[in-house]
Amino acid sequence: MRLRHKPWAREKVDNNPQYVAAAPKEQKGKWKELFESDQPIHIEVGTGRGRFVTEMARANPHINYIGIEKFTSVAVDALDCMLEANLPNVKLINDDANELADYFEKGEVDRVYLNFSDPWPKARHEKRRLTYKTFLASYENVLVDNGEIHFKTDNRVLYEYSLVSMSQYGMKLKFISLDLHKSDFEGNIMTEYEEKFSSKGNPIYRVEAQF
Amino acid sequence: MRLRHKPWAREKVDNNPQYVAAAPKEQKGKWKELFESDQPIHIEVGTGRGRFVTEMARANPHINYIGIEKFTSVAVDALDCMLEANLPNVKLINDDANELADYFEKGEVDRVYLNFSDPWPKARHEKRRLTYKTFLASYENVLVDNGEIHFKTDNRVLYEYSLVSMSQYGMKLKFISLDLHKSDFEGNIMTEYEEKFSSKGNPIYRVEAQF
Repeated sequence: MRLRHKPWAREKVDNNPQYVAAAPKEQKGKWKELFESDQPIHIEVGTGRGRFVTEMARANPHINYIGIEKFTSVAVDALDCMLEANLPNVKLINDDANELADYFEKGEVDRVYLNFSDPWPKARHEKRRLTYKTFLASYENVLVDNGEIHFKTDNRVLYEYSLVSMSQYGMKLKFISLDLHKSDFEGNIMTEYEEKFSSKGNPIYRVEAQF
Repeated sequence: MRLRHKPWAREKVDNNPQYVAAAPKEQKGKWKELFESDQPIHIEVGTGRGRFVTEMARANPHINYIGIEKFTSVAVDALDCMLEANLPNVKLINDDANELADYFEKGEVDRVYLNFSDPWPKARHEKRRLTYKTFLASYENVLVDNGEIHFKTDNRVLYEYSLVSMSQYGMKLKFISLDLHKSDFEGNIMTEYEEKFSSKGNPIYRVEAQF
């Protein structure tokens, strides 16, 4: 995603603590207190401009959603999306997702979403891919037992890599689609990127995998 | 594959015991005696017209290959392929592969190949797919510990199904390609069907999975 310099973004993010957790590490173990209702928490790692997590929150009022986005200049767009939607069940963490255990207790998260993560195609950057084994371990550290990752991407090579990485880690693959928009999967919420990419006729790959 | 009635096929198959095992169940535990060299055995379940297994035998003289094909009218073509190649390390079983344990001891087989198996697309025919759990169990019953299945297909839905079926069975996925002919996989031997299908520009899906 193209990053623009937005010098005003930091201030806007800081001034909207009703959506952006001000001190996410201090929230560890207490996320349910931030939400109106005590209900399952699903997180999206790399939430980008926030449409997915916000529209999921609108479609599933019985779930609490947290989007995590490290770039403030992008997170501010996700904030705008949430401000406009005005929903009680979606929040934002504007911070790095490298160590999720700093933010969440084991079992505090019910599901992890990864959407159109950076493919990091060079072999020497393998460790940066969000489906590399150290990231899988970090998701497992905060998920409930038998928790799931729901992952979609347009990048064939990242998808091939991710299926093998998840399987080698010991996860079980539950649902696989090599052409999501032509599958019988219902309720797909498209990200901004997904809509643009798939309009060119390219397939979207998706998997649900369980620890 | 289209089956033609070939009334002479049975006689030809029966008259070439140097390639077609006459009583495969009696060979159980003794397959290495049929081959010139005592070396690992790889089998192809549903070997069709035999090009894959014969060309693999030519390319890999340190492996013994056995193709299994239930239809005599097709197996006779595989026999022709083997007669022409005149190789010491490839044989044929013209029988049903439903119960591999009738033919092989546990650990007698080092690898199973499945190529372009019948997709059986209707849900009520799931049990006939060669990657259904009962077939996976039958391969495990004859394979060495940590033995592998190497599977390729042009059928997207069968491939999606098979990855999930293998993973749910407890197998680990080792190598995945969603477009084999554009991948960096070396030494691919094309089946007759694969050559015809891929010349239209359609992708070939492949996986190596390990018990």
